[in-house]
Formats: sequence, structure tokens, C-alpha cells
Amino acid sequence: MVPSDDAPAEIPDDALALSDPAYREAVVDLLGVIAYGEISAFERLAEDAQLAPSLEDKVAIVGMATAEFGRVAALHERIAALGADPYEAMRPFRAPVDSFHERTQPADWWEGLVKAYVGDGLADDFYREIAAFLDADTRDLVLASLEDTGHADFAVERVRAAIAADHRLGGRLALWGRRLMGEALTQAQRVAAERDALSSLLAGGVDRPGLDLAAIGRMFTRLTERHTDRMARLGLES
Amino acid sequence: MVPSDDAPAEIPDDALALSDPAYREAVVDLLGVIAYGEISAFERLAEDAQLAPSLEDKVAIVGMATAEFGRVAALHERIAALGADPYEAMRPFRAPVDSFHERTQPADWWEGLVKAYVGDGLADDFYREIAAFLDADTRDLVLASLEDTGHADFAVERVRAAIAADHRLGGRLALWGRRLMGEALTQAQRVAAERDALSSLLAGGVDRPGLDLAAIGRMFTRLTERHTDRMARLGLES
Repeated sequence: MVPSDDAPAEIPDDALALSDPAYREAVVDLLGVIAYGEISAFERLAEDAQLAPSLEDKVAIVGMATAEFGRVAALHERIAALGADPYEAMRPFRAPVDSFHERTQPADWWEGLVKAYVGDGLADDFYREIAAFLDADTRDLVLASLEDTGHADFAVERVRAAIAADHRLGGRLALWGRRLMGEALTQAQRVAAERDALSSLLAGGVDRPGLDLAAIGRMFTRLTERHTDRMARLGLES
Repeated sequence: MVPSDDAPAEIPDDALALSDPAYREAVVDLLGVIAYGEISAFERLAEDAQLAPSLEDKVAIVGMATAEFGRVAALHERIAALGADPYEAMRPFRAPVDSFHERTQPADWWEGLVKAYVGDGLADDFYREIAAFLDADTRDLVLASLEDTGHADFAVERVRAAIAADHRLGGRLALWGRRLMGEALTQAQRVAAERDALSSLLAGGVDRPGLDLAAIGRMFTRLTERHTDRMARLGLES
């Protein structure tokens, strides 16, 4: 998933990289935002479960919710191993993540499924892009925390079947997908503006490779293309 | 936890016991009610998590919720191995379990904690009593599904601290505990009246040991005593 052309030629050595306070701060930020994102994903999926049309669907979505939550412990352990407090590390990201969820409350089961698939997919793609700039240990942990817990196939199957049965639903969900993308970008910009250490992971440092503006532009193009692919898999126009 | 005096002298051999259709039906019922109870416990704890006074408390309670849910898969597998459909097996218990939760909606975080501790404790004690009448494989599965996921200590610690800080809370939570016991007994009687196979597990059969009325009376005395112990651990009068 990580593009080879913009990836850094030399990835910093783990111990050396983490001895740089700015890099360590950035990694703590990154693990903090991913951990809070997982907790938040859990809460949202647990709420969606209440809208499930059958007990089978409820059990399926709760299974995904618990899998998301199951990844939090490893992220917290790593934050603690880096000498930071996991709850302090998550704190700066509560407002933007909560804002995203408040502004994108699903009106029904279908909007919840699309949000889970499209929203998590977008966040995961973004973290994968960042992972290319991490030391090996941190990168492995981040990539492990992004593995699909099965909700992609579940969401695609259910949403496609629902659209086949009711074509107007497709129009509504296509608009919904665009709104999710817009709100996600708004909150991501807010985080980038407020968290210098995190942004500098992408921009690079004195002795750390990074992306120039053109490369950042290409990254956003890739993120948008993958969003379009996901919408297409759902049978929706993006 | 299972008392030696009322336990059957001879526990039926696994394969032999399960070749009896009435016994197998009773086991499917039992695993069905426990599985739906776990799903329902998950949902209730996930809702309680929204009331958590801090992110630390939220993560603690969500951890317990996901542990409850994590036990459902093994119960479902066993029901399927006995030739029954897990969702069909859970169906008869949805109404009584849901009724219990609707009638005992916690008004705040503290009522939720007491309900999780006292309600689950009572259900677990009851299933442990029944476990004494099961073949070895089923018994092991049932007992494994009842292991405390850590919420007992968490609830006790938090509730005691809250009562110490606000004595009026103790009076309200003591009343709440009594109401939980009353509603649980009401729904348990409803299940016993409707599910003959399940009740016959306790009453015994032609070639299966069971409890006479006096022994059933002693069982209820034990359940009540353990409820009183739990209330006392919370610092509440029962």
C-alpha cells in the first residue's frame, strides 16, 4: 500500500531515531491518535450495533467493535515504553476525533456501515502513508493496528444488497460518503495545524527524510483515489 | 462455589448424556441463555461506558465489555456442535433478558456499576449451580464462560469510594440492589415456567439425578446469601 516513489530512501534506525526527542514526541502523538481513534471506533460501532436489523448483524458488528478495541492495549504499552502516559498522549486528539463523530452521526444502519468502511479506510490509508517514515518497530506496531477486522467485506456485502433493493438509498449514501471525506479532511487539517511534532513526521527534519509539497500533494491524490475505490466497491459514486 | 451436599452423586457420562434428546435440548437452552446474556451484558456495559466519568474509567469498562463478548463464540460453536442453530437457541431468551434490562436501566454511572457487579454475580452463581448437573465438557465450557473479567474488583473499588464521598448515594444504591434482585427473580421464574427442558435440568429425569423441592429451596438460600455478600462488599445493605 505504501508507494515506493515517495518513501524515504533511508528509514532511521530504531534506537537512534527514538533518541531524538522531537521524533519520540511525534511517535507518541501518532500512537495516541491511533489509540484514541480505536476507542472511538469501538464506541461508534457499539452504537451502530443498536441499529442492527437482526441479532446476526448485531453480533457481526460487535465482533468488529471488540477487535478494534483489542488493539488499544498494545498501543498503550508502547506509549508507556516510550516514557509517556497513554491518556495524556490521547488527550490532544479527543476533541478533533469527537468532533468528527458528532458531525457525522449516522441516521440509520446503512449510514453507520458506510461510515465504518469509508471512514476507517481513509484513516488507515493515512496512517499507512505515515508508517513509511517510522522506525521499524513502530512501523510494525502501526501496521498491525490497521489490519482489517473483517468489516470491509461485511459492509460492502450489506450495503450493495441494500442499494440493489432500494436505488434511492444509493443516492443518499453517495452524498453521505462525500460528507464523510470532507469532515475527515477538516479534522485532519486541524490536527496538522495544532500538532507540530506529528506534522514534522511527514515534512521531515534536519537529518530525517520527509515529503516536499509536491510529494504531499501526490499523497493526497493517492488517498482520494483509494477513497473513490472504496465508494465504487460499495456501488456508490464518489 | 458449588455445594457438595446437593450435587448429584453421579454425573452423567458426556456422550451418553447428550444422546438423550431432552438433556441435549436442555443444554442447548442453557448455552443459548448464557450466550444471549453475554451479548446483552456487552451492550449494557458499552452503554455504561458512555456515562464513564473519565477516559480511564471508560477504557476499563469497555475492556470488561469486550471480555464478556469474547466468550460468545465458544458457546455458539458448542451449540452448533450439538446440531442446533445458535441464533435459534438464543431466541427464547431475548424477551426475558431484554425485559430485565429495560426494567433496570441505570440512571447513572454508579447504578450501572452496581448492576454489572450484582446482576452478573447473581446470574453467574445460578449458572454455577446448574453446572453441577451437566456432563463434564459442557460444565467446563459453562464455568469458563463465567470467569470474572475483572469488573468485580473495579466496581467494588469505585462504588465504595463514591459512597465514602457521598453517604446518600449508599441509600439509593442499596434500594437499587434490592430492585435488581427482584427483577432478576421475576425474569428467572418466567424462563423456568416457559422452558421445560431447562427446568428439568434442575428437577432431574428418570435416570438423571436432580434436586427435590427442599434442595431447590436451599439453592435459593445460597443465591440470596451470596447476593448479600456482594452487597456487603460494595458497602451496601441488602
